[in-house]
Amino acid sequence: MNPFDALMPKPVRMNPKPGGLKIAAGFSLRIEGGAGVKVAKAALRFQKRLADKTGLFLEMGGPLECSLVMQYKREGELVLGEKEGYTLNVTSQQAVLSAETDLGILRGLETLLQLVCVDQEGYYIPAVEISDEPRFPWRGLMIDSARRFQPMDVLKRNLDGMAAVKLNVFHWHLTDDQGFRVESKVFPRLHEMGSNGEYYTQEQIREIVAYAAERGIRVIPEFDVPGHAASWVIGYPELASAPGPFLREINLGILDTVLDPIKESTYLFLEEFFAEMATLFPDEYLHIGGDENNGKQWLANPRITQFMEEHDFKTILDLQCHFNKKLLDILTKLGKKMIGWDEILTPELPPTAVIQSWRGRESLVQGAKQGHRVILSAGYYIDLCQPAEYHYKNDPLPADMELTEEESKYILGGEATMWSELVSPETIDSRIWPRTAAIAERLWSRREDCKVEGLHERLDILSLGLEDLGLTHEKNYPQMLRRLVGGAHIAPLQNLLDLCEPVQGYERVTQRKHTAVSPLTRAVDAARPDARGAREFRDLVALYHGESEVRTRLQEKLRMWACNHEKLAPIIERSPILREVNTLSLDLTKVATIALEVLESPAKKLNEQEKAALEEAKKPRGQLQLMIVSAIEELVTKNH
Amino acid sequence: MNPFDALMPKPVRMNPKPGGLKIAAGFSLRIEGGAGVKVAKAALRFQKRLADKTGLFLEMGGPLECSLVMQYKREGELVLGEKEGYTLNVTSQQAVLSAETDLGILRGLETLLQLVCVDQEGYYIPAVEISDEPRFPWRGLMIDSARRFQPMDVLKRNLDGMAAVKLNVFHWHLTDDQGFRVESKVFPRLHEMGSNGEYYTQEQIREIVAYAAERGIRVIPEFDVPGHAASWVIGYPELASAPGPFLREINLGILDTVLDPIKESTYLFLEEFFAEMATLFPDEYLHIGGDENNGKQWLANPRITQFMEEHDFKTILDLQCHFNKKLLDILTKLGKKMIGWDEILTPELPPTAVIQSWRGRESLVQGAKQGHRVILSAGYYIDLCQPAEYHYKNDPLPADMELTEEESKYILGGEATMWSELVSPETIDSRIWPRTAAIAERLWSRREDCKVEGLHERLDILSLGLEDLGLTHEKNYPQMLRRLVGGAHIAPLQNLLDLCEPVQGYERVTQRKHTAVSPLTRAVDAARPDARGAREFRDLVALYHGESEVRTRLQEKLRMWACNHEKLAPIIERSPILREVNTLSLDLTKVATIALEVLESPAKKLNEQEKAALEEAKKPRGQLQLMIVSAIEELVTKNH
Repeated sequence: MNPFDALMPKPVRMNPKPGGLKIAAGFSLRIEGGAGVKVAKAALRFQKRLADKTGLFLEMGGPLECSLVMQYKREGELVLGEKEGYTLNVTSQQAVLSAETDLGILRGLETLLQLVCVDQEGYYIPAVEISDEPRFPWRGLMIDSARRFQPMDVLKRNLDGMAAVKLNVFHWHLTDDQGFRVESKVFPRLHEMGSNGEYYTQEQIREIVAYAAERGIRVIPEFDVPGHAASWVIGYPELASAPGPFLREINLGILDTVLDPIKESTYLFLEEFFAEMATLFPDEYLHIGGDENNGKQWLANPRITQFMEEHDFKTILDLQCHFNKKLLDILTKLGKKMIGWDEILTPELPPTAVIQSWRGRESLVQGAKQGHRVILSAGYYIDLCQPAEYHYKNDPLPADMELTEEESKYILGGEATMWSELVSPETIDSRIWPRTAAIAERLWSRREDCKVEGLHERLDILSLGLEDLGLTHEKNYPQMLRRLVGGAHIAPLQNLLDLCEPVQGYERVTQRKHTAVSPLTRAVDAARPDARGAREFRDLVALYHGESEVRTRLQEKLRMWACNHEKLAPIIERSPILREVNTLSLDLTKVATIALEVLESPAKKLNEQEKAALEEAKKPRGQLQLMIVSAIEELVTKNH
Repeated sequence: MNPFDALMPKPVRMNPKPGGLKIAAGFSLRIEGGAGVKVAKAALRFQKRLADKTGLFLEMGGPLECSLVMQYKREGELVLGEKEGYTLNVTSQQAVLSAETDLGILRGLETLLQLVCVDQEGYYIPAVEISDEPRFPWRGLMIDSARRFQPMDVLKRNLDGMAAVKLNVFHWHLTDDQGFRVESKVFPRLHEMGSNGEYYTQEQIREIVAYAAERGIRVIPEFDVPGHAASWVIGYPELASAPGPFLREINLGILDTVLDPIKESTYLFLEEFFAEMATLFPDEYLHIGGDENNGKQWLANPRITQFMEEHDFKTILDLQCHFNKKLLDILTKLGKKMIGWDEILTPELPPTAVIQSWRGRESLVQGAKQGHRVILSAGYYIDLCQPAEYHYKNDPLPADMELTEEESKYILGGEATMWSELVSPETIDSRIWPRTAAIAERLWSRREDCKVEGLHERLDILSLGLEDLGLTHEKNYPQMLRRLVGGAHIAPLQNLLDLCEPVQGYERVTQRKHTAVSPLTRAVDAARPDARGAREFRDLVALYHGESEVRTRLQEKLRMWACNHEKLAPIIERSPILREVNTLSLDLTKVATIALEVLESPAKKLNEQEKAALEEAKKPRGQLQLMIVSAIEELVTKNH
């Protein structure tokens, strides 16, 4: 694939030219127009990545002819809607990267790095004119540090990954039932009693905010209230709607604990707390969660039900809206704008509050119609292990959306959401990448440029570049397999897991109860969404119309799988952790054997036993799903 | 290999019994005797690692029969010579881990985890009685954070690795010419101007000290003076022996910059600085470096040479000894004991100073005879990419050492030293692990138990366990190969690099000038010491005495290598970064072809051209060495 086609996200306008700019040891940089530290640091990172990629001992500075000129007019502000566009003009003499703001330079440098390619003479950047800018101003990734704590290095490498695909909002889910992950000096029992000792100090928070800012990424903290707040009330039981004492929570799902919305002291506490947090997080937006309050504790508390009656609040939602409005006042006083999950969208909610749609697209439309700015996350839940294509097709503003042009402007963009009930620092990258790059492209590139064809090939190329940023989505896979087999001989297990995906949606926790401390080192954790081996097989089957060459390739794969179980079985025997995939392994061998027979005898019809075997092989085992069965059924159909 | 033989380091006394303790979901723990937080946290980590290894959803607490009891008498102090011994008694009913101090419990838990194994029924710990304690009280790893900054996660995962092999001293080389890596609030220009912005804040220093302490590891900071101090004088040129101004240094090697040893203000500065550092580092020892001062700037400064005359200092060393004594006074006043590299060992040095031998064993002997406590690092320079066996054979106190019993007691132990001129966060683990485990065993286990046979097999097993701690010595290898080939098809390159090692000793920098910012992403960086493929081939050749089965296995390998270049050549063509290994790749194919012919024609003698090809293949290319040539020569000899 040529480097222009591989670019991700796709630039708006691109005009490739013949020739290119050689990259050699004398490759030098110059910054014009701005003297900001952001571009200076970005240029250093660019130079390091270029050296790492090419192995060239690049010289720093020196009186050399300049290879790359960066020109910008002003330092961009890290606020919603700031200009991020850039133009890039590469000739055989020089590359010129121009932008209104330094943010544009940052975005352009990522494009430039993706363009580096090779010919007989060495590395070069192909000549091109590019002019680029984002479609949506809000392009985010949410990481949940609460359910499972995510250490600093996880966040940093993911911020690097975000910058590489031009995402610009890091939404940081910092508190939830299972953990309060930010140090509060005002209310220290929040993090001390509300966590297992794993939380971010204020210095670390500042470090992440600065790290993100250097990459042109805003940080929006989320403090989820009034539900999802079990970790708050352990140290401060007076905030709760039910009598304490409370202990640390490792159960997942929707819990009952909810803050008391009728005590003035609750709001005084929140005001003081948010005032403290406002000093840590410079962004003008602050997320208050607001989701999944089941209201049980409110209804069980006579003091609260009496308050509801007095105020003529008919429902839980009415009371929560009261809570939200009080919160909005607090945030407004602190100079902050409020965001919340779509539950906060009620007719009474003042339009200054921003709505994040997660339960479906309805709230996106309804929010925009009510004059709220809205962000789409429904369809971007990357924790649910759905295919990249599914997320990619999910346009925040499709052509047929029933909104006026004016209403459409309220749609700010979207956010991928990495909830962490089922990810550890070891597996989180494999759930974020490379699928989030597809979402990033959807949010940056023109609607008409987001074509599904070639998406996976392009993600595969991008994925290698993401690895160089320290992301572990590829390299932790064989490592986890080594642990599973208790040795270095992983091939038979890999043959199986290359074809398997974790069950999608909320199936995994439906099939087996997990807590916040269950091990995440099983086969289902090593396996990844969009299983590459399964995809390659499906593509091959789709391509197959009786050609002998394709048939041979199919047979090669199927033969390997048909005898895979005899190799894997003794490994499973020695690794009890793998026993839950024994049936899956047998199923693979069975369906591969059936498929081989189908290929080898064109007239063959499946008997009942074979049909049953295919049906069986569709069943999840150990929360894993074999992803080649439908392709084998397709093969059977094609054979006739 | 049975789990007892695999244990690393080997326990002092071990008495295996029949049967074992089953590990199932109800596996529970109890702590008796102590109420310290160290063991409580260690037990949680133990439980998590056990769950991760077995995939069992272990229950926390609960009224279950107790599987593992930990008993200790008191919290150990993190000081030299504190008791670390433990006894472990595993029956089919229960495991009892007893120790005088909590440090012993920590060491025993690591033994216990290494013992986990598998039978038909699942995971279990084999029944055994173990009684164990270290041979030397000072078992260290030095990491150089100065030449190349090493982020927090690098340090943390290596502290975990250290704890796994029972090392107990983290020697932290924090300042050097190329970087001043610790925040000083008293003299902020030290880290601000003396680094590229990469330094540890005081909060981070405290975090590392606490992290190490939780694992029973002391932290000894090193501030290298008076040489290796170019980063100090950028912000404080008045400290220098030569006129400034000074700029940041990226050159490596022995530089001229040295502190001014005759100004009283130098000592006032150092006193204030060390006083600040003393509050950060609780250990009673503090390392002042003292190595590689070439004295050029002293001899070039008339003020200093006059001072030398006045004090009758004949040599640079005399003057440095004056400096050292003043420093010793400062440290003593601060309640700290001084350590330095062996250059500080002069007849005038007061015996309270500890000597770290690095230039050879002579200073170890001489130091001990002069009544200094001494630490061995000569022979433990893991940055030099020498074989594990070489380090393993290096006993700080061999049986034939010419020391009295009294003098022998001055030998405290040893330290592996990870200098960072040529390692990045991506490659550092592969230079530390698994070889440092061999050094750890040498320092913990009885002399007579340290047998070279089986060492590599045991290191291979340990290596997998180390991976689970987040260490990247295995998983970064294929990742780096993917970057080198610019794609996912790494097999031909891996076939070659599995047989290659970085040149040993100081050859790499002799062959090519490197700076502190040269890329470390080349083939030589991906390749690792003790190249496993080469070792396996050499072992096979050693085993070979004409048996057809061994011959077949040799032929399989050689045939693969004989046609490897035709597969690798087009990859090299597309990856200019690999051009430097083109000759190496050709050489592999040539020598493999020769070896195949030798194997296939028993009477064959090498012609001149073939002999020349073998000689050529011994030459390093791109600072890499093909490690199978001598084995092929052996094969030729054996064939006759």
